Amino acid sequence: MPNTNRQWKLNARPKGLITPDVLQLSESPLPSLDEGQALARVKYLSIDPTMRIWMADIPQYMPPVQLGEVMRSFGFAEIIESRHSDFKKGDKVTGLTGLQEFALISGKETRAFQKLPSIPFLSDTNFLGTLGVNGLTAYFGLLDVGKPQPGETLVVSAAAGATGSIAGQIGKIQGCRVVGIAGSDEKCKWIKDDLGFDAAINYKLPDWKALLAAATPNGIDIDFENVGGDIMQAVLDRMNLHGRVVLCGLISGYTRQDPALASFGQVLIKRLRVEGFIILDYASRFMEAGKQLGMWKMMGKLKDKQTIVKGFEKAPEAINMLFSGANIGKLIVEL
Amino acid sequence: MPNTNRQWKLNARPKGLITPDVLQLSESPLPSLDEGQALARVKYLSIDPTMRIWMADIPQYMPPVQLGEVMRSFGFAEIIESRHSDFKKGDKVTGLTGLQEFALISGKETRAFQKLPSIPFLSDTNFLGTLGVNGLTAYFGLLDVGKPQPGETLVVSAAAGATGSIAGQIGKIQGCRVVGIAGSDEKCKWIKDDLGFDAAINYKLPDWKALLAAATPNGIDIDFENVGGDIMQAVLDRMNLHGRVVLCGLISGYTRQDPALASFGQVLIKRLRVEGFIILDYASRFMEAGKQLGMWKMMGKLKDKQTIVKGFEKAPEAINMLFSGANIGKLIVEL
Repeated sequence: MPNTNRQWKLNARPKGLITPDVLQLSESPLPSLDEGQALARVKYLSIDPTMRIWMADIPQYMPPVQLGEVMRSFGFAEIIESRHSDFKKGDKVTGLTGLQEFALISGKETRAFQKLPSIPFLSDTNFLGTLGVNGLTAYFGLLDVGKPQPGETLVVSAAAGATGSIAGQIGKIQGCRVVGIAGSDEKCKWIKDDLGFDAAINYKLPDWKALLAAATPNGIDIDFENVGGDIMQAVLDRMNLHGRVVLCGLISGYTRQDPALASFGQVLIKRLRVEGFIILDYASRFMEAGKQLGMWKMMGKLKDKQTIVKGFEKAPEAINMLFSGANIGKLIVEL
Repeated sequence: MPNTNRQWKLNARPKGLITPDVLQLSESPLPSLDEGQALARVKYLSIDPTMRIWMADIPQYMPPVQLGEVMRSFGFAEIIESRHSDFKKGDKVTGLTGLQEFALISGKETRAFQKLPSIPFLSDTNFLGTLGVNGLTAYFGLLDVGKPQPGETLVVSAAAGATGSIAGQIGKIQGCRVVGIAGSDEKCKWIKDDLGFDAAINYKLPDWKALLAAATPNGIDIDFENVGGDIMQAVLDRMNLHGRVVLCGLISGYTRQDPALASFGQVLIKRLRVEGFIILDYASRFMEAGKQLGMWKMMGKLKDKQTIVKGFEKAPEAINMLFSGANIGKLIVEL
């Protein structure tokens, strides 16, 4: 039995990338186990973009890691000693091991670990990627949020990443045209030649937006978005009406001093649904709405006010009143 | 019968507000009617923020108005002469009259006009506002997109505008707590005292964000967004998990040289659905996904790749690799 545990603890909040002062390596003695505890030796640590968010002291979807705490991470580990009824020596687990060599599993933290089956065709590391958080994210994000239909065009950013590469392949399984965006020719070659993406665009090429346009001749129906910023904008610019954006990550903003959690960041962190909306799409139901609105109006439940500008020649000025806030209620020009 | 028609034609594309060169007043003779045509005298012109978008030569949800054309607008008009089988003299209509004194209704443009019933408790102008485009927009936007539930908190921006004032009242009918944001004390007083909003915030007060927080003690479930920019951001910052943003307008950006149709503008114009997504919410279905992913993996339909960094001490560097794009596939630290 080893008797010390090396741990990476959060020592300072990062400003941008992870500088040497951010994580501090420390050693602590391994505890002897109490009843209800198990000790796992970490074999693999999963390195994920969300770790950068966890390091920042901003509102987010889990509590931020506190200074002095072991840095949070997923990992793959093997139980080496157990007085816990759920685990026996030799069991393999994944879960929130943290950046440390040994993880103590105890009490309510037990929920953060999952015992793994032994499946011949799967490697240990598959349980961190394809069968782990990344695979699950790709699966639910694409299928439940993106709702792909055969023949639709799916674009995946960070397409050679752990999640993007699975999302694109699930898109192919669903019968979509799948275009990946990645940051090197090597990555593009992998997702196109090995993973079967229909096209791959290296966004570091100067003409990448033209290449994206050429690769999406029918526009884009689904954006599986991992990056944000300029890349997301270029994809949005080619989206078709009523397209779906699965906002899965915004990695281009994570290494700002405060990870970019404004605007789309809030949509991501809070799992908001933002829907663009223009009344033309509801033309077939205007009668239904008109009846209801008329009823409410008659019952006194809807009140209104008009700001009336008199004179046809005042129409241009009237338009500006909207932007200066000069009207209350409906703005109308009376002829 | 009059024999001339005054028209506001688009003369120059606006940069910002509507300057005097943008719309040019011109006179043209009124045509004599052919079979299948009707002539309507415009009584009221509806002035709407979307007119500013129609003036800009950018991709949008309808063709932009071309230079030299009569400026597009909604209006209320009365048929004064008809050789059209759908209309007779005295009929009242609403539709895309354009900024002119008389509208010729003919051929396929007939679809852009709707004959109005005569209803005692409704004024002519109600057909442009509460029973017109604004009422319909509020109705479908709030009910179909926002899906309000009793007890939820709804925030409406531009709440004293034609659409926002109706959206807020429909929110009250649905049993929501409704908070409006508007730009003057007079507007706030109207929506609170006369329309029955639960609270109204004047965003021109220096402490308006604190007032918004105080008025939304349980956070915000639905944002009926008409404004965009800083106001939208302040609302997003207080949204609850799984909230809904009905993106109805972004008026704060319309008077830029090019109306702000980037990012959220694309979401609006293209009626996109953007959903934030974090895998934690799907915990109860991990088993389902794991089985399917495992099956696909076994069938060779999912391929993967790992970038493995060896050595526990390399964990901090490994995190940075994500942001420099140094990994392909799943990034893992092997201990």
